[in-house]
Parts: sequence; structure tokens; C-alpha cells
Amino acid sequence: MSVPLKHGERPGAALPAAPAALRSHVAALLQSCTPGHALPGAFFTDEALYAVEMQHIFGRHWLFLATEAEIPEAGDYRTYQIGPWPVFLLRRDDGSIGGFHNTCRHRGSRILQQDSGVAGVTLMCPYHRWTYAQDGRVIGCGATGEQAAEQHALRSLHVRQLAGLIFVCLADSPPDDFDDMAARMTPYIAPHGLTHAKVAKQVDIIEHGNWKITIENNRECFHCEGHPELLCSLFDFFGEIDEARMDAEERATYRRYLAASAESEALWSRHGLPWRAIEELHGRPTAFRTERLALDGAGESMTPDTRAASKRLLGDLTEARLGTLHFHTQPNAWYHFLADHALTFATLPLERGRTLVRSTWLVHADAEEGRDYDLENLTRVWNATNRQDAAFVAETQRGASSPAYIPGPIGNNEYMVAMFHAWYEERLRAELGL
Amino acid sequence: MSVPLKHGERPGAALPAAPAALRSHVAALLQSCTPGHALPGAFFTDEALYAVEMQHIFGRHWLFLATEAEIPEAGDYRTYQIGPWPVFLLRRDDGSIGGFHNTCRHRGSRILQQDSGVAGVTLMCPYHRWTYAQDGRVIGCGATGEQAAEQHALRSLHVRQLAGLIFVCLADSPPDDFDDMAARMTPYIAPHGLTHAKVAKQVDIIEHGNWKITIENNRECFHCEGHPELLCSLFDFFGEIDEARMDAEERATYRRYLAASAESEALWSRHGLPWRAIEELHGRPTAFRTERLALDGAGESMTPDTRAASKRLLGDLTEARLGTLHFHTQPNAWYHFLADHALTFATLPLERGRTLVRSTWLVHADAEEGRDYDLENLTRVWNATNRQDAAFVAETQRGASSPAYIPGPIGNNEYMVAMFHAWYEERLRAELGL
Amino acid sequence: MSVPLKHGERPGAALPAAPAALRSHVAALLQSCTPGHALPGAFFTDEALYAVEMQHIFGRHWLFLATEAEIPEAGDYRTYQIGPWPVFLLRRDDGSIGGFHNTCRHRGSRILQQDSGVAGVTLMCPYHRWTYAQDGRVIGCGATGEQAAEQHALRSLHVRQLAGLIFVCLADSPPDDFDDMAARMTPYIAPHGLTHAKVAKQVDIIEHGNWKITIENNRECFHCEGHPELLCSLFDFFGEIDEARMDAEERATYRRYLAASAESEALWSRHGLPWRAIEELHGRPTAFRTERLALDGAGESMTPDTRAASKRLLGDLTEARLGTLHFHTQPNAWYHFLADHALTFATLPLERGRTLVRSTWLVHADAEEGRDYDLENLTRVWNATNRQDAAFVAETQRGASSPAYIPGPIGNNEYMVAMFHAWYEERLRAELGL
Repeated sequence: MSVPLKHGERPGAALPAAPAALRSHVAALLQSCTPGHALPGAFFTDEALYAVEMQHIFGRHWLFLATEAEIPEAGDYRTYQIGPWPVFLLRRDDGSIGGFHNTCRHRGSRILQQDSGVAGVTLMCPYHRWTYAQDGRVIGCGATGEQAAEQHALRSLHVRQLAGLIFVCLADSPPDDFDDMAARMTPYIAPHGLTHAKVAKQVDIIEHGNWKITIENNRECFHCEGHPELLCSLFDFFGEIDEARMDAEERATYRRYLAASAESEALWSRHGLPWRAIEELHGRPTAFRTERLALDGAGESMTPDTRAASKRLLGDLTEARLGTLHFHTQPNAWYHFLADHALTFATLPLERGRTLVRSTWLVHADAEEGRDYDLENLTRVWNATNRQDAAFVAETQRGASSPAYIPGPIGNNEYMVAMFHAWYEERLRAELGL
Repeated sequence: MSVPLKHGERPGAALPAAPAALRSHVAALLQSCTPGHALPGAFFTDEALYAVEMQHIFGRHWLFLATEAEIPEAGDYRTYQIGPWPVFLLRRDDGSIGGFHNTCRHRGSRILQQDSGVAGVTLMCPYHRWTYAQDGRVIGCGATGEQAAEQHALRSLHVRQLAGLIFVCLADSPPDDFDDMAARMTPYIAPHGLTHAKVAKQVDIIEHGNWKITIENNRECFHCEGHPELLCSLFDFFGEIDEARMDAEERATYRRYLAASAESEALWSRHGLPWRAIEELHGRPTAFRTERLALDGAGESMTPDTRAASKRLLGDLTEARLGTLHFHTQPNAWYHFLADHALTFATLPLERGRTLVRSTWLVHADAEEGRDYDLENLTRVWNATNRQDAAFVAETQRGASSPAYIPGPIGNNEYMVAMFHAWYEERLRAELGL
Repeated sequence: MSVPLKHGERPGAALPAAPAALRSHVAALLQSCTPGHALPGAFFTDEALYAVEMQHIFGRHWLFLATEAEIPEAGDYRTYQIGPWPVFLLRRDDGSIGGFHNTCRHRGSRILQQDSGVAGVTLMCPYHRWTYAQDGRVIGCGATGEQAAEQHALRSLHVRQLAGLIFVCLADSPPDDFDDMAARMTPYIAPHGLTHAKVAKQVDIIEHGNWKITIENNRECFHCEGHPELLCSLFDFFGEIDEARMDAEERATYRRYLAASAESEALWSRHGLPWRAIEELHGRPTAFRTERLALDGAGESMTPDTRAASKRLLGDLTEARLGTLHFHTQPNAWYHFLADHALTFATLPLERGRTLVRSTWLVHADAEEGRDYDLENLTRVWNATNRQDAAFVAETQRGASSPAYIPGPIGNNEYMVAMFHAWYEERLRAELGL
């Protein structure tokens, strides 16, 4: 017998929004932004917007996920969670890299259930033993009917490699501008030899903030006074520079920066390393930025003493004093390529206000811990910087969530934050047809 | 002064859905199912559907909650949480069992606040000392006005006993087919003497999955390769059997199964124990299934060595080698009745993606631990099986929550999963008038 | 390329309700109340109502937050979270008290990130070093453009002091009846010398219930049988008293109460201490109640032996046997002022079903722990009472959340609960224009 709902007995749950209502909602949020200013707090707290971002930003763009060094041998796999999607990467027996949704085509169980491991020639779901070939085809599904096999291959991801970096895209039709980025970036990155590197250390931090705060924080060095370890090596001159406004100490540092840059440009040219900035942080789906920058002190690495942490340089490099090659990719990553090691940072949203930041330190595949590098020395600067950034992100999430928050102006030295916002708005408008 | 809501200052909360919108939503979800296939992921993640299920599935059907052995003596009570409803069962002084909402009729406090205990002749709410008789009547409410007592009795549950099993229904008008099930099942279960049994062990597991995944998992043995301890005794032949497709080992097991079944049927008949399957898993509100099955090995019990765990058999049984009587009740329970012990499993949803599974091992009331049974030997198989099932459920919840999940085909050996789906859809349509 | 949302792939999030829908929703909830009865369970579980309460109750009324003794010296600050608003109080160099939103006007970070501390002449946000004067003006914002400073002062709160108690209001235009309350209450409270008091102890408890249950619980002593430590000193006669219904023990206590009251009134008059009840718990935005009450036993304090806990009495008081001055302020606080110490209780909602209760024990600024008072003796009664109340609140939240809960009658001895409800409804109707 069906009884009408009485007040106090009706279920308390709300319905998911219809697509048209979601579109209007996102349009109103975008409308509420003030040009040249920070994002309103709702961008960090709104559940519906977060769901839209997962679908249209993380679900449709090229995402940096890992380096080839994470799955070096045939059969090596690694599982990841991208928003609501469990996925995995697999080094196949032919050396190619496959990316798949980690969801069985039968009843939906995750197939690979460890963080990493070695698969055999086939992949078997532990639940009902549906079995897949390395290309995703079903090759066994018990009594369920093999005739169904054809139509039940594992759903694959688009995978692209860029000089050892692995990108994936979950969309059926990924943005077609990846190859352009890859062609232009390969000359910069390839000399750092990531395809012959190994993971020296990987650290996951959960930041208590929205993923956009994590990215915004990475896109400016206005806050770098809060990173004393990082500033040993990094010159924090970004955006318009006005020497007239500097105090004596800043001016001294700026002069060192100009001298180091001039000297480094000569050195880079001598070694055939491209160094000029490319800045296409918006205006395209696969937006990016790169620039090779001189470092302070010995100029070799992002270490406490600014000297190379690893005696064995990356790739075939012979010169340690190469500064750092910066690289940003929208929406979720940044990287530093040094002569002796490389650093990658992948941002993966966990929920509206919680974000995984995975930092990976890579050294030459033949470098040996203890002999060629000291792990503590290698990781000290960015472990400290990550902890500091995590605090900045958490306090910004908390403060900007206040209904009293009125977004403030974004300065010249934060111009890349504005570019990230421009990209973000472009992509939502394009995806949602706004 | 009332100020209009400004953007960024408006409360972020959504409204609960109106009944008509909820009905359309559920209808659309049901429409999205493909016959003969698993449920779409939204069935495990949608908050509004979960609220509907609590109200219309758990709020209106007969639920297995406990066995009489949990409250054997006058005054014994036990508290439970059924979705949003705190309830309790009470053994009254006259030996009858009462079921009540555990919510004071005054300001709403829970009245009985421990998991279990012994009540006196009256039940007193500790907050303001409103006091109730064992039939729920108010017999004291301080200065609030005794004239109100008449109309403020504790709200009661419908309670039915079936050979020692206690079922409750929260609806005003419970489904009227319980007595039919009880009449047909009593001859099967009564010989196992649950009304003269005691709880040897009770274990609560929280499974990280939707309650329907827990039930689906229980309704098939396609996954039983993942239960090595269980397969010592259990023959996993369910659904259509095709001997031609078996390998040598499977064929050997199948032959043992046929021989054991024939032998057991003769034995059951000799002991006057009904054994033929009754399968009414859908087509009725109080749907159920039973079947007495031979066991492998010694054929006595679900123990590592397939021998009886308790020397003192249940009820007046004299023969240990009776296999297992399976029993399923929709929506939330399953049971195994052996000669030496019985097992009950009650499923109670905690939230959309978290489910309590309570396992209870029952032995003869006179059996003595140490002398008649070893607790570790008694519980080993199902403790292991529960742990394995909890992992299956969690990985299915996680994988099937992926937006990339496309439900796969349900095989013959999972036909009871399809029957559970049929019941579930029938009940939602009947309750919501779809 | 934008792909239409497919079923199972659509984001699962609901949209925040539009203002008109919210208003109707709140109107329907208020309509569902029965006069003279407890609130329906939805008032403790509805997410949308909670958001409305934060905006219209906590966002627009005078809230008790702290005593001056928490920030006694120039530069002392203390941070608080009021619903979604991080805020702070600051003792300025001129001795005045400022209240500000703890959200930087640049990118929104919290500025003061510790629970308490000492600020310098300026306040600097640690993120990008925007710097504020003690009046909130921006006095430095790096390269962001000082021309923006004028328009980016910290957003301030309205702050009022009442004989050492600090109240804040987040609204642009706070209720204008605070001064009336202050004028009438100052003669009652000022003699207790809070402006020359110090914090002896502060304890935060998180109650697992809605903030209204915490307040309701405080507004009646019908449940005081559950507070044995408190009843050593407190007479629990509130509302209509009917001696005919008392048992012998109650009658004896009642006679003691009448005698102690008569004696105390004479004493209070002799000492020039106002004592008559003022009860304006509804009918005005800044609603309150006060009454000076005799205590049982020695009549001096809320201690186990009913004697003063501190030898050094508050202010210039010379008589210890002054009973307790009760004070309630809607929506979030209560207080007891004794001769030897004062107690304040501030209620700050954390979420729908979780509430912070902050208890503060204040003694004379010159009282010395060990010599003048024993901290354990001072705090024992209310630490016990708070623990008991936290259990009452949690069990009421749990029981009243049941869809089976039907609100019960509110008795004469709970009449202040009904007055709180009246105020709550008045305020919602006024704020929402219902």
C-alpha cells in the first residue's frame, strides 16, 4: 500500500540538477566574477559546480597523470582515481602504454585493486574472473556467455607520451591540440632524459582546499616569501618588474638575477637547449607555459645549497648549471626539469574542498641512492615548499568560503592566475555551450 | 531588516525533492536499466534514490532483525538502527516480544540508549523521565500533564516470529503475505530449534558499498572461487549447469555433488526434513527462497573440516550430516541452518555507500563453549567469507560508481541477482504507483 | 566538443535553492509545527533550513562571543568561526575592541591563523603579505597596487560590550535594541566585575546535535534530575509550581527554596543588587531573560559543597552568599554570575547536527590558582553538567531524527523552550518576510 508522504516523513534528499539548470547555474556563477579579480568563494564551495568541473574539465581535457618511470617494465601497472573515475595505466608486453577505466564490464568491480603491481599477460577481475587481454578485449567471462565478449572490451583512455610524461584524456574525442604542444615542448624536455629516468621518491599530500586554489597558488610567486627553502635557488621575478619600487636587498637580488640570466642564456645556447618562454595558458584547450630560468647561488638545482643533488645528471647532460625548465599544463600539473633531477606535480581533485597533490622526484635510471644522491637532500626543498603551500591552500579555502569574502584584485605579479581563470572560463563556456 | 540574497552569500543548500519529482526521478532511473544486465551505477550512488529506498523498501517491508536468542529473558532489550529509524525489541514479562520506535513521545530522545540491556517493568526515558509500560502506554510524564498520556503511547512496530527468527515491519499496514511464508517455512526451519538456541557469536562488519551490492553478492555463487574456506563444504552449482563446459576438476566436484545430493535427499526424507526448493524471490512483497543442499566432504557443517562444530546438535536433531538449509528473505537477509549450528545475516543500510552486515552464529542453548564447541572452529569459515565479501562489495561500489561504467550481462549462474532486481523494481513501482 | 549528458554520466549534485523556494520551504516547515509542542524532527535535520538559520539567525542577530578577559592586553587577538564566517576579535592599542572578518581582501586567506595570539601594530596576511592597520585599513599590498587600498579595508563586525561581555553582529544593520538590553542588564551584571576578571578555565565541547537542541536543553530544568552535581546548589523550580503534586522530599526542598529566596531577597536588597526577573525571551530581536536566584545549601556557589570556590570574590563584592544571577540571550548563550566566579556559555553551530559549546570560568583578575581557588573544585559541577547535557542533546538529535517522531507536548516547566520557539519563528518570519 502506498501512503502519501507526510511532512517530516518525506525523504530529505535533493535531486541532481537537470542539464539546462546546471548550465544556467554555471553561467550565473561565471557572470558573478569581476574581471581582474580573484574568483568568488562559491567557486570553491559549490557542489554542483564541482560536479560540472569533473565532467567538463577533468573529463574532457588532457591530464598529466604519471611519468613512464612509474611503469618501466612489461606488465607494470598503476591505478589512479581521477575524480569519480578509477583508471589504470599498463606497460604492455610490446612496450606500449595502455590506459583503461578500472571498471569491469560485468558487474563493475575495480579490476586492479592495488596501487601498483605487475600484471601477467592477461588481467583478471578478482570478483567473477572476467579476463581481459592487454588491449582490453574480453577473453574469458565464465558462464556469462563468451558471445558477449566482443562488445564488452575494457573502456580505454586516450594516452599520449611527451618525452616521458604520460597524459590521458577521458573524452571520446580529446582536444586535438596535444600534438602541437608535444611538438613544441619535446625539444625543451627531451634533453632531460625522462625516458631513461627512475622515480627516486613520490609523496602524496592531501591539501584541504579546492583544486583551483592549488593551481592558482602554483601560478604565482607573489607568495614565495613564504617559501624560504625554495628561495635559496629560485628567483621570484614574474610579471612586470619595477626596479624603482625595490628596496636595497631586492635590488641586489634582481641584479644577481639579471647577471645569472644573461650568463645562463649563453650557456643554454652553447648546449643547444631551448630556453625562450612559450606562454599559451589560455586560448586553447591544451594550454601550457614553459620557460627556462637561471637559478640563484651555484645555479645547479633546487637544493638547500643550490648544487646538484645527483652526481649522475639526467639524460646525456654534461653541465650541471642549467637552472630550471618550468612547465605548466592546464588544468592539473606543473614540472621542474633540472640538470640532475626532474620534478612533476599532478593535481587530482578528491572532493570540492580536498585535493591530492602528487610530487615525484626523478633521477637518472642509473643513479644510485647513497652513492649518487642523498634522498633527504634531493627532496628537502620541495617537501618543505609543499607543506607551506598546503597551509596556504587550506587557509585560503577556509577564508574565501566566508560569505563575507569579496574577491580582491589580482596584481601583475599574479598574471598567470588570471590566465588560468581565462582558460577555465573559456573551457566551461565551450563545453557547456554558454 | 531583511536583505535580499546576494550572489556568493546565498545559502548553499538544496531543497528536498517534492514527491512528484522524486517519483519521476525513480521512474527515469528504472527506465535506464537494461533487462538481463546489472544495475546502472546511479543505483549505488544516487542520494534521492537511497532516501526513497529507506522509505519504501526498508520502511514498508518485513525485515529480518534478530533471533529470539538475542533477548531470551523477560526484560531483555536490544536497540537497532534501521536507516533513519532507531528502534528496539523487548522481551516482555509475559514472554511476548514487543517492537517499538526508540523515540520518546515527549521531546524525541532515544529512550533505551545502550546496545542491549535489561529493562524493568517500565521503561523510562532518561531525559525527562517520561515512563512507559511494556505495551508502550505512557504511565508517567512528570508535570507535562497525564491527561496527555492516552494519546502518547510509544509507536510500535509490527513484529512476527518465524521459528525463532524475528521480523519487523515499520509500515502502518504491513504486507499481508508474511503468514504464508511463515506457514511454508516453519516445517523447514523449526527442526533446527532456534527457539532453544543461544548466540555463540555475533560480528558486525561495515561494508563500504550500497546495500543492494551486499544483497546481489549474496544472491550468486559465481564469485565463490574467491571463498576458498567456504568451498571446502559448499557446492557452488547454481543456475543452469552445463557439464560439457567443465574441466576435469569441476566435473569431479560435480559428480560428488550429484552423489551427495542423492544420498542426502534419502537421509532428509528419512528424518522427515523438507528439502525441496521454494523460489518466490519476486512476485510478492515478502519474497523468499529456500533449499536444502548437500555439503561436500563429511557433509555436516560449514567448517574447515566439514564436520559439525558443535557436538550438541540443534533442536532434537540426531543426525549431523544434514547439509545446509539455505534461506533468503528480501530485502535484507540470508541464513544457513545446519545440524549443529545456524547462521543468520541481517543487512542494515547505514548510508548510500555503507552497509552494516550482522552475522550471528547460534548453537543449542545447552551447548557449552570449550566442551561442546570451539568458537574459532565454529566461526572461521564465515568470518573469512565475510571479509572476502566485504572486499568484493567495496571494489564493486568503487568501480561501478565510475561514470564510465556500462552495466554488463547477468549470466545464468547469477539468475537470483536478476530475481532480486525484479523484486526491487516491482516494489518501487507498487509503492510509488509507477 | 560538448557531448549531451547521458544517464549515469550526469553530475550527481543538486543546485542550491533559489530564495523564493527557500522562503516557501521555511514557511511550510513553520506551518508543520503544532502550538505547545516540540519542534518536528526536520528542524534538526534539514540542510536548507540550517543554511537559512546561519544567514538569518546567526548572520543578523547579536551573538555572545567572548568576555573581555579573553583579550585583556593591547594586541591580544582571538579567532572564532561563526557558522561559515571566520572572524576575529582584537584588543587595539587604544584599549578598544575591534571585530573583523578573518578573510583577506586580496585572495581570501584567513589572516590570523592561530586560535589566539598577540598581534603587532599591524596585521599581516601570511599569504601575500597584505597588511592592515588595527582599524582594518589596508596599509600595504605588495605590488598589487596601493591605489586599491582605500576600497579594501577588512570588513568589520559590529561589536558591543556589556559589563565585560562581548557581543558581535555580522549584519550591515544590526538590531537596534541591544542598547536597551545593555542599559537594563548592566546594573545586574556590573557588580560581578567582569571587566576586572580573568579566565580561569575554558572548555570546548562538541555536542552531536543541532544548536536548537542545545538551547532548548538549556531553557528548562525539567531534565535536571539528570544533573546530580548541579542539584547540590540549584533549586529546579521553574514555571508553574503545584505543591499538591509534590512528594515529601520535593516539598521539603520547596520549603527550603522559599525560605532561601526570602532571605536572599533581603540580602540582595541590602547589597543594592537587583534581583527581579526580566523575561523578554521573545517579542524583540535581542531577546533575553534574567533572574537572581537563591542557591541551596550554603547558597554561595555552584560547587559540590555550595561554598565559594574562590576566596577572592568578583568585583568589589564582600558577601559570598549571593546565589546566582541567571542570564539568557537569544539565540546562543547563557551565563551564571556568582559572588566568587562567573560562567559564560557560547553556542556556535558547526553543522546541522554538531554544535560547539564553549564554557568559560571567570574569577577575579587578582585571584591566584592554588592560593585563592582550586581549579578542580571550581569546574567540577559544570564539567559534569556539560557532559550530561551533551548526552541528552545527542540522544535527542538521534531519536528526534526518526521519521516516526511525532513532537510531544511542552509542559509548564518547559515554558522557556516554548518562548525560544516563539522567538525563533518571529525572527525567521521577520527576516524572510513571511
